[in-house]
Order: sequence, then C-alpha cells, then structure tokens
Amino acid sequence: MHIPKGYTFAATAAGFKYEGRDDLALIVSEVPAHAAGVFTTNRFQAAPVLVARENLERGGRIRALLVNSGQANACTGQEGLDRCRDTLTMLNTFGLSWMEVLPASTGVIGDQLRMDLWEKALPGLQAVLGQSSPLDAARAIMTTDTFPKIVSREVRLSGGTVRLLGLCKGAGMISPNMATMLGFVLCDAVVDGAWWRETLKEAVRVSFNAVTVDGDTSTNDCVLALANGMSGVELSEADRLVLAEELTGLCQDLAFQIVQDAEGGTKVMHIEVAGAQDDAQADLAARAVGNSPLVKTALYGRDPNWGRIVAALGRSGAEFDPNAVSVSIGGQMIFENGRPVEGDWDALLAPVLRRDEVVIGISLGDGEGRALLFASDLTEEYIRINAEYRT
Amino acid sequence: MHIPKGYTFAATAAGFKYEGRDDLALIVSEVPAHAAGVFTTNRFQAAPVLVARENLERGGRIRALLVNSGQANACTGQEGLDRCRDTLTMLNTFGLSWMEVLPASTGVIGDQLRMDLWEKALPGLQAVLGQSSPLDAARAIMTTDTFPKIVSREVRLSGGTVRLLGLCKGAGMISPNMATMLGFVLCDAVVDGAWWRETLKEAVRVSFNAVTVDGDTSTNDCVLALANGMSGVELSEADRLVLAEELTGLCQDLAFQIVQDAEGGTKVMHIEVAGAQDDAQADLAARAVGNSPLVKTALYGRDPNWGRIVAALGRSGAEFDPNAVSVSIGGQMIFENGRPVEGDWDALLAPVLRRDEVVIGISLGDGEGRALLFASDLTEEYIRINAEYRT
Repeated sequence: MHIPKGYTFAATAAGFKYEGRDDLALIVSEVPAHAAGVFTTNRFQAAPVLVARENLERGGRIRALLVNSGQANACTGQEGLDRCRDTLTMLNTFGLSWMEVLPASTGVIGDQLRMDLWEKALPGLQAVLGQSSPLDAARAIMTTDTFPKIVSREVRLSGGTVRLLGLCKGAGMISPNMATMLGFVLCDAVVDGAWWRETLKEAVRVSFNAVTVDGDTSTNDCVLALANGMSGVELSEADRLVLAEELTGLCQDLAFQIVQDAEGGTKVMHIEVAGAQDDAQADLAARAVGNSPLVKTALYGRDPNWGRIVAALGRSGAEFDPNAVSVSIGGQMIFENGRPVEGDWDALLAPVLRRDEVVIGISLGDGEGRALLFASDLTEEYIRINAEYRT
Repeated sequence: MHIPKGYTFAATAAGFKYEGRDDLALIVSEVPAHAAGVFTTNRFQAAPVLVARENLERGGRIRALLVNSGQANACTGQEGLDRCRDTLTMLNTFGLSWMEVLPASTGVIGDQLRMDLWEKALPGLQAVLGQSSPLDAARAIMTTDTFPKIVSREVRLSGGTVRLLGLCKGAGMISPNMATMLGFVLCDAVVDGAWWRETLKEAVRVSFNAVTVDGDTSTNDCVLALANGMSGVELSEADRLVLAEELTGLCQDLAFQIVQDAEGGTKVMHIEVAGAQDDAQADLAARAVGNSPLVKTALYGRDPNWGRIVAALGRSGAEFDPNAVSVSIGGQMIFENGRPVEGDWDALLAPVLRRDEVVIGISLGDGEGRALLFASDLTEEYIRINAEYRT
C-alpha cells in the first residue's frame, strides 16, 4: 500500500446502525490540501453533499474528510444541515475548523443524525487517529459492500515520486436503506487547485460515472479528492499528464471494484461502443444496454442473446443506421451490419459467457463517438437483497 | 363478448415454435375497413412493422390482420421483408389482396420465416375461418403470456349501438426469444379515416404507452385498429367523443392486463404524478419511478420505501423544487414538502402493500402536468424467466 505523505486515518464504531463494526472514519491531512469534489446530480441532495459543496466553494484549503455509514442525512431539511455542520464543529477538539472539513454520509435516508452517538464516538476517534489504517477507513464506510475497496499507486514524476490512494464504497448505485457511492482520493503531489479540480472531474467521468449496477443514482453520491503537496514534488506539464492518467486509472480501478461487488452480481460486462456520432450518443447506447434488465438477465443466464442487445440499442435514443450496426461478444462478431451472423453461438460462446467478465463490442457505424461502460448482471440475489423480505 | 359486426376469426397451429397450440391467427373484415396503426419507436423495426406501415401509408382500406407468434421476423433484412410480403400474397386464396392485409409477428428475432410451415398451415386456417372465436385468436398470439387478453364493449350512440373488441399480447415489454407487445382493436362504427387514426394514437398514448414492465421496447410492438362501418351507425360530433373515450378505456383495460401478466410480477403500481411543469415532465418522473429496480423490488418486498421513490424522482430529469415534493402510498401521505412524515409506516401500510394493486401518488409542486403509469414489480421469477438457466 502506497500511502501519500501527511495523511492520518481514524476509524471507530459509533453504533449508527451496524453492530460490532466501525462506521465512522476521519482522514486528516497534516497541512491544508487542494480539494476537489464531484457530486450527485440527483435533485434531492443530502445535507453532507450541500455542506461539502459549500466548504469547497468557499475556496479555502481542506484538512479533513469525515465520513459515516448507517445514516445518510438526506431529506432531513434545515435540521439535517444544522446537524451536519455540528458534526464538523465537533472536530474543533482535533484542531480542525469546520470550514476545513468535508463531510460524507451513507445509510438510511430521512432520519436525523443521532448527535448523542456522534458525541460519544469522538474521543474514540481521536484516540485512534494515526493508528487506524486506510483499510480500516475503507471498512468503516461500507454498507452492503462485501469487501472494502481500496487502491494505491506510486507515480514517478520528473521531480520525484508521489502517491495516490483511493477508497470507495458502493454496491447498488443507491439503495437508501443501505448504500450509496462514495469515493475518496488522497495525493501528496504539489498541485494547482484549478487543475486538480478539472482533472478529478474528467477522471470521474470515465470511471465512477462509467459504471452501472441498476441505473439508480443516490442523494449522497460524491467523490472527494485532496492533494496536500507533502511530497514536495512539483509537476511539470508532462508530469501533469502522467498524474492525470494515473488518477484516472486509480478511479477506474475503484469503480470497477464497485461493479464487481454489485448487489447480487455474478459478472461484469465491459460495454465498448464505437462508431457513434459523438461520445454522448455512444454513452446513451452503452447505458441502454448496460441498464436493460433483459440484457442483464441474459448475461446472468449465459445466453448469447444479441437480440436483446440490439433491441436496447434501438430504443437508446442514439442515432444510427440499423443496417450499419455490429455486435460482438467476447471478440466474436455475432451480429454484423444489421443481420445476425450464422453460427452455433450457444456452443461457440459458452466458454466466454462462463467468465466473470464479458466484453460486448458494439459498432454503430462510422462515427468517431466512443464510450466504455462497466455494468453488472441482474440476478435473483439482487432481488432478494433489495426486496428485503418482510413476512 | 360483444363481437363487432362483419369480422371473422381463424386460428391454427402452424408449428412455428410452440407444440400443441395455435400460433397463427387471421382476422378478416367482410368489407374494407378504415385502418390505423401505432408502431414501435425502436430503431430496429421488424419486417412486419415495415410492411404494415407501407400498407397503411398506401391509404387504401384494410380487410385483414395476419398475426403469428413464435417468429418475430426482425433483423432479417431484405429477405425478411420479401418473406413477410409472401405471407400476405398467400392470402390470395382467401380472396384478399396483399395490400389489404396488415401483418404482425412476435417471437424469436433474427430467424427467417419458415415458408414451408406457412404454406402447410394455410388450408387449415382457411378451414376454420369463421369457426374460430376471438378468444382462439387471442390465444394464438400469446408467447410468455399466462392468459389470453381480450376485452369488448358495446357503445350506445345517438344513431345506434356499435361494438369494440380488443385483443393483445405481451408480458415482458420485449424479450426477443419470446415476447413483444401486440394489440388489435376491431370496431363496426362508420368512421372518418383521419379521425380514427388520430383517435387511436391518443388512446395508445394513455394506455399501451402508459405501462411498463422492464422499460424495454421491442422491434415488433404495434397496435392496429380497424373500423369497418358494418353496424351502419354514423357518428355525430358527440358520438365521436363517446367512442374515443370508450376506445381509450378499452385500450387501458388491455394495457392493464399486460402489466397484470408481467413476467414474474406480483403487483401493479398505479403511479399518479401531478404538479409537474407539463405532462412530458410528469411522464419522465413516472417512468423513472416505474422503471427503477429499487422501487420495483421494494414494492415486491412490501417495503414502504419512499426513499427509493424520491431518489428515482431526483434523477428523472423532471424539473422541480425538492422542497415541494410529496409522495403518498395507498392514499397515505408518507413524504410531504421534501420531508418524511413521521409514522410507523411498516405497520400502517402493511395492509395496503399486501394488495395486488398499489397506488403511488406523487406531487411535484404546483404545475399543471399530470401522468398516470402502470408498472409491475420486479421479482426472482422475472430473473428466472429471462435468464433461462443454461447449465
């Protein structure tokens, strides 16, 4: 694990929802860091999302991330905003101003934060600050996740080596009683704030925003990134390109882990669309396929059902000539120029469809637009998790 | 059953796919009828859709509907078009010109029609014409449907009584190996052709286009309507309003049967959206809720999970002030002006959520836009049907 310089971690059990496990994490930077955030586009934005945006827009540097699972603090009104700010103010005892902290929450929607539990938890959090590992923090932010999601990279630049560390959680794209997508990235490079913000935005576009489990987005989704400069390594123009690429790769690794851990999922589709009129059209096409219950269940059933892929493309809203469309599964062209290719596909594709990852290649014609989307399959287990039988 | 005057029915087993049941139906009008059609917006349009559109656009009157299950004749190229036209030409022996017949198909995508089976089936079809019932025809067009879908109405108008008969099939909105949505309406009123076409379009908008099982649309979806004037009853201005309303009601009854028969479905949501900026925005909101896997699984699990409804609204693309949003389930306000209403909802809503039909009322504020959508829930059985285990 490559831990960026100048960051310490704390994780503790506040008892918000889960028995016998940590559910509150704090990440502190020794010095103020440039901070960037990308937030849910859902119209219902949770209190921590609104407060984190405020603190980012204030333009000051950020010293800490405060993250809890078990309570989402969403649809909680003014009271929810006040309580969220109160949790930041409590960090005075850590020598942190509330303006220097970005909050994030995941868990049950609608309930107000239990301030008594927060107050009781703080001494414990303080006691372990610097002793907890990044993995402890990654575990504390889990909800329905079946494994903690953490990735790190060492990046050699012209002026020296910097480190990137990312952690995230998420299993359904949203499920208010349990889950949400939260991502955090720490870096110790010396960066320009505006560049860092732009770079995160672009990295998120092709990583966290390029995965789908069930097409739902949450009130709490966010990705927050800090760069504290503690490595002392400044970036040349060329270094910026390298670091941006590494940041993108790190975010893609994390996003991929989310799809791997999709609620009830058994497989990940790599949906690669090319030949669209532009990238936005390619994205429309990829999402229609990746979110189609019929494509997802066919994948789960190991059924090389190009008909469902083609039907989803046809209703995606992307513009194309049906007679120019081709589809491959696992590299084998099964549908070409609007017509099925003859073959015993059940037999030919059986080994491909047994794998955990299946590449679906789609060409819409001869445009330049491209998109890559990672999508899970849809299984009885997803239904069971989300129906939460009540008898 | 109120059978409009001047229509005869035939159903036979052609052996396209299903053993031991009818899979080919013919409906013949004694005299040429005004015809109207509404077709799938999917970019991949099956051969029968293209041929039916052609014959409608030719503007002549229509005498027959020829419908098969088992083969969709979609993604079959020029050959598919040729074979579709050949099936119409075969009806010469019935005294029908190919230009007077509208075809519709449902079943496996990609395979060419088996012309040998069509030829073999025709004498049998001819033999039973006039002996088969509308119910026989409704059975012959089924795929994964668990029951035939048929509705009829008698409508008293100023000049006399006319009859409407509708039949349809569909269980998943599409599943290329099996299903598609096809609807047929027969009427014996004397109508103006342009009025009949407009009236069908509007009726379909608020019926067949206001239901969702899985958000998928098919290459073959169509609704075809004939009015042959055999009742001799002409329509006054007031009669037109009455008949339009009855046609809409008939289509809604049929559409509702489709959701009732949703693959694996146990419940139907009535999603009633009001207070949107316009009807299109209301429709966006209703569809986001009705197609959300998380809302559907919550409904299945009898979980009064307003959080999932609210989160779906938030990502729907509809514009609204989150603080003006209210949600009721079974008439009980559970979320009001952007905040949850306190209450023991598990207990309070248990009787409501045990029912087969659950009304979800949504107000987005004070706009005039409204929408009503019928949507199924999502169950393990849907997964089983559509994953078609291959071991």
